[in-house]
Amino acid sequence: MINITFLPSEQVIQVPAGTSILQAAMSAGVHVLSTCGGKGTCGKCKVLTSTEIRQIKEITETEKKFLSASELATGWVLACQHLLTQDMIVRIQEQKDVYQRKTDFSGVQQLNAAPRIQKLPLKLPKPSIEDQTPDWDRLMAALPGVGCQFNRTVAASLPRVFRLGDFQVTAVLDGDKLLAVEPGDTSERCFGVAIDVGTTTVVAYLMDLNNGRVVTSGAATNPQQVFGADVISRITHAASGPNQLRELQEKVIGGLNKTIAQLCQEREIAKDEIYQAVVVGNTTMAHLFLGIDPTYLAPAPFIPVYRESVEVEANEIGLDILETGTVVMLPNVAGYVGSDTVGVMLAAEVDRLPGVSLIVDIGTNGEIILSGKDRILTCSAAAGPAFEGAEIKFGMRAAEGAIEGVRITEDVQLDVIAGGKVRGICGSGLIDAIAEMSKVGVIGSTGRFASGPAQLEKLPTLVRERLRKTERASEFVLVWSKDSASNEDIVLSQKDIREMQLAKGAIMAGIMILVREMGITSQEIDRVLLAGAFGNYIRKESAVEIGLLPSLPLGKITTIGNAAGDGAKMALLSTEERARAETLAKRAEHIELSTKKEFQAEFIKGLDFKKVK
Amino acid sequence: MINITFLPSEQVIQVPAGTSILQAAMSAGVHVLSTCGGKGTCGKCKVLTSTEIRQIKEITETEKKFLSASELATGWVLACQHLLTQDMIVRIQEQKDVYQRKTDFSGVQQLNAAPRIQKLPLKLPKPSIEDQTPDWDRLMAALPGVGCQFNRTVAASLPRVFRLGDFQVTAVLDGDKLLAVEPGDTSERCFGVAIDVGTTTVVAYLMDLNNGRVVTSGAATNPQQVFGADVISRITHAASGPNQLRELQEKVIGGLNKTIAQLCQEREIAKDEIYQAVVVGNTTMAHLFLGIDPTYLAPAPFIPVYRESVEVEANEIGLDILETGTVVMLPNVAGYVGSDTVGVMLAAEVDRLPGVSLIVDIGTNGEIILSGKDRILTCSAAAGPAFEGAEIKFGMRAAEGAIEGVRITEDVQLDVIAGGKVRGICGSGLIDAIAEMSKVGVIGSTGRFASGPAQLEKLPTLVRERLRKTERASEFVLVWSKDSASNEDIVLSQKDIREMQLAKGAIMAGIMILVREMGITSQEIDRVLLAGAFGNYIRKESAVEIGLLPSLPLGKITTIGNAAGDGAKMALLSTEERARAETLAKRAEHIELSTKKEFQAEFIKGLDFKKVK
Repeated sequence: MINITFLPSEQVIQVPAGTSILQAAMSAGVHVLSTCGGKGTCGKCKVLTSTEIRQIKEITETEKKFLSASELATGWVLACQHLLTQDMIVRIQEQKDVYQRKTDFSGVQQLNAAPRIQKLPLKLPKPSIEDQTPDWDRLMAALPGVGCQFNRTVAASLPRVFRLGDFQVTAVLDGDKLLAVEPGDTSERCFGVAIDVGTTTVVAYLMDLNNGRVVTSGAATNPQQVFGADVISRITHAASGPNQLRELQEKVIGGLNKTIAQLCQEREIAKDEIYQAVVVGNTTMAHLFLGIDPTYLAPAPFIPVYRESVEVEANEIGLDILETGTVVMLPNVAGYVGSDTVGVMLAAEVDRLPGVSLIVDIGTNGEIILSGKDRILTCSAAAGPAFEGAEIKFGMRAAEGAIEGVRITEDVQLDVIAGGKVRGICGSGLIDAIAEMSKVGVIGSTGRFASGPAQLEKLPTLVRERLRKTERASEFVLVWSKDSASNEDIVLSQKDIREMQLAKGAIMAGIMILVREMGITSQEIDRVLLAGAFGNYIRKESAVEIGLLPSLPLGKITTIGNAAGDGAKMALLSTEERARAETLAKRAEHIELSTKKEFQAEFIKGLDFKKVK
Repeated sequence: MINITFLPSEQVIQVPAGTSILQAAMSAGVHVLSTCGGKGTCGKCKVLTSTEIRQIKEITETEKKFLSASELATGWVLACQHLLTQDMIVRIQEQKDVYQRKTDFSGVQQLNAAPRIQKLPLKLPKPSIEDQTPDWDRLMAALPGVGCQFNRTVAASLPRVFRLGDFQVTAVLDGDKLLAVEPGDTSERCFGVAIDVGTTTVVAYLMDLNNGRVVTSGAATNPQQVFGADVISRITHAASGPNQLRELQEKVIGGLNKTIAQLCQEREIAKDEIYQAVVVGNTTMAHLFLGIDPTYLAPAPFIPVYRESVEVEANEIGLDILETGTVVMLPNVAGYVGSDTVGVMLAAEVDRLPGVSLIVDIGTNGEIILSGKDRILTCSAAAGPAFEGAEIKFGMRAAEGAIEGVRITEDVQLDVIAGGKVRGICGSGLIDAIAEMSKVGVIGSTGRFASGPAQLEKLPTLVRERLRKTERASEFVLVWSKDSASNEDIVLSQKDIREMQLAKGAIMAGIMILVREMGITSQEIDRVLLAGAFGNYIRKESAVEIGLLPSLPLGKITTIGNAAGDGAKMALLSTEERARAETLAKRAEHIELSTKKEFQAEFIKGLDFKKVK
């Protein structure tokens, strides 16, 4: 066995020789960024090892492709490629998540907080030889008109709770379901949690159900990330063995439990005081969260197991809130339009907006909603993870050191998250970069780099110097090595540009098909709402410039933040909103793009970097 | 650590020095008979050790009380008294349970088998890109009018099951609850289990729900026995620490799981093909089976946690049938009149019998039902475990080597279970013995042994020789050492007689109070039904002779076997019977004997060994 120590966490694990560093890290519960799931195609799992310079023959072709000679010389390896042969210390590059630095206390406007959770303080008559009423019946007699179903776990707690509270107790009800009985009058403390399970990030909002406020919130990387960045690699992993589905479920629930534990500790709230969780996520995430096999979501005809909202007891899936607490998963619309999109519909109030509204939630998939003319149309465009930085050579998530904004005039100017040396470029930076490169003429509308003398001449000198040919293809230098955290030039390659084209082309095709389905033109759209973390950071002009969004007056385009999470909060706080979520999911007409014969043509049209009328 | 090997099972366990043999046996899962729970008061936990003759100082006073000098000399010890100091081989006396040798295939008369479990074979349309209906919705569409609630576990299985059965499947329904979906048409196989959880013995009847027949059945000692013979010692144990309740639950469920596994193996039935369990037991056993704290059942005012019937999913309590299968615990009447008594009422059809019926189920407690005049009265008489052989020096359960019948004419004649050497005396033997001793004049109606010359003269010579005085008190030799398995005389002591008096006095007092409550005399009882295993073996004449039952023509007294178990079978097989159980439990008027001021007087009257008019 080989001993591996991971820094900075100092976790140690023993593994058999021949294990990859990535596998060892997964076994140790150490998070190593990997967006291809260990296939050796993303090059993200760079780690620094303590070994002497390795023999050239030990370096794999894949490593040569992703690591520079100086990196290889100083002990950097790809965690998925390096198989362990000796004891080793491995340093992990930490990605401090930008979401973790921002805490959303605003979110939901003050709703009429009428949550399904109710706390009723009760004074019970004490038993005597003349009144041998069983504990459960004694409680029910004090809850007239409720008629709760028997709950074994709650019943089991009654003898202790009754005597502890000297027969003064508080019943916790979820509608007509009895969740708990607590000793004394505890009606002032009543909490719930709204959860947004993203493919990349999981967010939890701890809510005070008595006043409808967010008490605190937290986010963390979805620990399923180690099995790949997108839903398809998660589904593939789930289907790859008998225990993998459970493993994926345990990963995401485990990650959430950690976050919830932190929030509880921070605010001195016991997990038993969290009585309900309302959860949203894309259909795959929802299946995995519930431990339901998502296998047949991957191949056509993309069949989910369930669609309507699901309620389970927290202990059934191991979520660390009150064990008998209810976990509500909002309904899905289709295999690739999940409860997160229903949350967006709820928060954006698509059923109440006048005129025609286009709502786009860009993540690994782009979910698109077009509401108006008494219809709610939805579709999902497989944008791939390009907007999240995957598949892009220097792509990264919106984290410290990421380029998030780009301007090109005489030279390139950058906005870098948290300032300092540059480590890569995130989605909003990519869109900006392409829009600016397109405007200046570094790339043409087809996405090809300027090449002939006529094209090159038009570029400002400093910009022209950044455009260079390598062995394989052209690339554009965004950051020279001196400003780069890794001391290498940070570039956008022709392949990167192509990836962005495919991603934005898919979304524009989806938009245009919905527009057509509704029988309007894109110019008849009254407003565009950009949902999701990504939508928050995107520069509208750039999105319109590259043809990711229809060309509309910028005043009509608004970002609405994490609307999926807001929808979860609303459903948690209000039974009315909860019911509205059900209605919205039922009303939504899902358009399966793959069945539309015009999709291919729209997709090809959408590839061009130009404004779309 | 010390190594202990238990024979005949050859199980080995390591324990720290100072552990008692009884504790070691419990840890190893080896069953050692003990009815006092290790307190050193029952003397039943005799085991043979491999050690050399111990130093006299090591022998405890308790051991001297229960073990003969020759036993002590040959290595017999009390398992609860002997603390381990060295490696040891310990031989356990096995009690082969008489119930295990008899298998009840008769039981329930052919009911109109209309169980709540239904199997519906379905042919589902296959999904396509035009029909993306989720698996769950696809199934529901094929079950019109059922409208099942979403079940996460079943939903999780659908993708695999649908494809395995090529969309030909069988839905298993419990009313409107979907329990499982199986690939193919499996409607011919449909099983359930009826369970009787006794304080002493647990019995499981595996039933074919398609034809209402008992497929096979099995019984085993309730493994909670190690914590004491009666319900009070179990409750005391449950209350003695934070994990003890769970321990008791795991013991009984574990024991049942073993039995069920054996039955399944024997008949080649998978545990997943058992869809429902209907369980009866006394209120304490029911609480422990469900993992519900029984603490306040023990002290007055004897408060149970629940009364009505309870349904839980099998996986919630760990019962090894289909994990989503329903476990139905029939309703209780009161703290000491449990669902086993409701089962008796159901099987005896107390609501349909003409006239007045007295039903007595004698176990550790005596549950008494008096039905007639449109009323159903119940009470519980704390008989203690004397009828089951506990608290009686040579008492034992109805197992191999137990005296089950006694006749005294010129000398004593015995019926011994399975013949051979005598090991002790069981309940029916005790009643016989006392009736015969009373008839011949060995004891008077007050229970005292004959003593003056006038009394002794009347006894036949051989009988008189059996009556002898010891240091402490008188005793009657039932078996001389030559016919005894342990080579010692088997006797009934004055204390034994007193225990029997208390037990039968409590039952007779209960009967008389119910009779009075109904406003009749005991002579107006039209029939007496004896339920329970004990009732099967009792000789009616003797029961009447000693005043355990009212003096009625013997033709009016009938044994009805394990009626509690029969009730469970009936409720499993028929929704109608199940509903009747609920009605009976509600209709039953429970009389709490401790609130009746006349109880003390009736109890004292009931102590005498004489016929009761």
